[in-house]
Amino acid sequence: MATTSDGGVPRPPQRNVTIADIARLAGVSVPTVSKVVNGRLEVAAATRAHVERVIHEHGYRRPNRSAVKPAASIELVFHELAGVYPVEIINGVEQMAGVHHLGVLVSESRGHRVPGRGWIDDVLARSPLGVIAVFSDLSAEQRDKLAARGIPLVVLDPVGVPSDDLPSVGATNWLGGLSVTRHLLDLGHRRIAAITGPAWALCSRARLDGYRTALEAAGIPVDPALIRNGEFEIVDGVTHTAQLLALEDPPTAIFAFNDGMAIGVYHAAAEAGVRIPHDLSVVGFDDYLIDTWLTPPLTTVYQPLTEMGASAARMILDLAQGIQPEHTRLELATRLVVRRSTAPPRR
Amino acid sequence: MATTSDGGVPRPPQRNVTIADIARLAGVSVPTVSKVVNGRLEVAAATRAHVERVIHEHGYRRPNRSAVKPAASIELVFHELAGVYPVEIINGVEQMAGVHHLGVLVSESRGHRVPGRGWIDDVLARSPLGVIAVFSDLSAEQRDKLAARGIPLVVLDPVGVPSDDLPSVGATNWLGGLSVTRHLLDLGHRRIAAITGPAWALCSRARLDGYRTALEAAGIPVDPALIRNGEFEIVDGVTHTAQLLALEDPPTAIFAFNDGMAIGVYHAAAEAGVRIPHDLSVVGFDDYLIDTWLTPPLTTVYQPLTEMGASAARMILDLAQGIQPEHTRLELATRLVVRRSTAPPRR
Repeated sequence: MATTSDGGVPRPPQRNVTIADIARLAGVSVPTVSKVVNGRLEVAAATRAHVERVIHEHGYRRPNRSAVKPAASIELVFHELAGVYPVEIINGVEQMAGVHHLGVLVSESRGHRVPGRGWIDDVLARSPLGVIAVFSDLSAEQRDKLAARGIPLVVLDPVGVPSDDLPSVGATNWLGGLSVTRHLLDLGHRRIAAITGPAWALCSRARLDGYRTALEAAGIPVDPALIRNGEFEIVDGVTHTAQLLALEDPPTAIFAFNDGMAIGVYHAAAEAGVRIPHDLSVVGFDDYLIDTWLTPPLTTVYQPLTEMGASAARMILDLAQGIQPEHTRLELATRLVVRRSTAPPRR
Repeated sequence: MATTSDGGVPRPPQRNVTIADIARLAGVSVPTVSKVVNGRLEVAAATRAHVERVIHEHGYRRPNRSAVKPAASIELVFHELAGVYPVEIINGVEQMAGVHHLGVLVSESRGHRVPGRGWIDDVLARSPLGVIAVFSDLSAEQRDKLAARGIPLVVLDPVGVPSDDLPSVGATNWLGGLSVTRHLLDLGHRRIAAITGPAWALCSRARLDGYRTALEAAGIPVDPALIRNGEFEIVDGVTHTAQLLALEDPPTAIFAFNDGMAIGVYHAAAEAGVRIPHDLSVVGFDDYLIDTWLTPPLTTVYQPLTEMGASAARMILDLAQGIQPEHTRLELATRLVVRRSTAPPRR
């Protein structure tokens, strides 16, 4: 970590510098050095700076780090660390945690719906204040292990129907799906396709139910040929749009269940020479920052991911103090954001 | 956290259930319950599951959590938790940390280049194995505090010129800037604009130097009117492109110093009725997943953010063991990725 000032030859790590050495070199008492090393506040600022400078110069390393008790953290486990989705949630958790001087631990279940067996042992070793499982499920065994250690669990954007005793934070996905479909119906669309997320994702099923309900309420039969199963990946928007546009009676509007797949719809439409919104209306779901700047700007549903993260963190704080949260199954409001990717159908 | 099975009335937190109660209810000894609660392995799986079930049913909470020593973690501090950039770096750190059963702590310096005063105290309280400062700088005081506690620091994507004794991981930004500009020169462009990042960002200055060097090597004078200072935000791409296209002698190509600003260039070009790449070539920097799916797919420079995260984590692991890393100033390779947003100029 250090090089000598005379030319960059690495200095070997200083293993033998003790607190007593630092005290002698700094001209202060051993307890004073100890206080500085342990981050205690009852040392005058000038003294502290002086001791820190001496420590910096002589490379002292505290021999027994494990004796220090780290502060509490909230552990977030993600299905997958990719795209903008995780960072918005981390942001919300981190804002809430920061206020309470808590750390935010982030781990990934390596694309599995349920984290692997090793994961829970590492989490238990870290002894977090609580665990937030994001778009992923814990096994009954993993949940029991957390409960046995008094570590509360909150599920964010649940993938399965959460059991009654498991606190969860989601968004009003059903209403989001309904709003999108009504918006397209109001514009005059009758052939409205849906590119869904995976069947195991509760949010996707809720959006699909909202879509069906809006169609049924308008007296329009649901056409199974217009419902395509995606996996929330951009490429799903590309392939399903190509197939939908090749139908004998193609849709005049496509509702992609996330913004990534909507970008895939844009791509496939451009490849096919289909203009948005003139020939095809497109709606996404999430409202990422980029949506405003797409050509054309994307009509989508705002999903309050940052607020969802903050709410889940707040639940952990309550549960960790033995307080029952006011709501154990929270759905935060979604909101249709109309931009320029939707218009009345030509036909 | 729990509701009764007979109708959802929250059960008050169980404060008085002791390990002895659990032992009696489970029909096992107190030491066995203690081992289960503390995550030790010498309890048969069936017994463990049985005890965990009993604990789950009766809501025991360990009274003295602070007696348990959490495992070590690596702390990542970001300038800002927004966009895809942080998540790719977290991914790389998390992969490396996971192998070593380390946690990954994430914090944000609230958009400041240097985290605020409270941040360092919270970090010290968490006592991480090491700190990775991403695209942000620590004050000399913060660095000294870490050093005084033997907590190694690695800078990822340094914002200022890192001092010789500060390990850092970056990318070959200079070569990236050079490659982009050469590619545009080879296509026949002579009026090449640059929309930079903030002046305090080392990566941006390196890209700009590469741009200048390529122009000078080709005998083309650098035109200050074609160099615009952005802040790596999408909107910078929009506003600067609008101004560049309004010049009397507008550029035939724009090099945006990140992909977000390149999307802004796309937006402004569409607004102005300027076609990419027919009327204007565009190059970005980062190579996010979305680039392949833009219309047209974006020519850009791949920046190995995940590998940068993993390398920084590996440095922390070395330093924490007192091993001097082989390279203390590492620049990982960037690579020009030519897609369809660049073509020979019309004029």
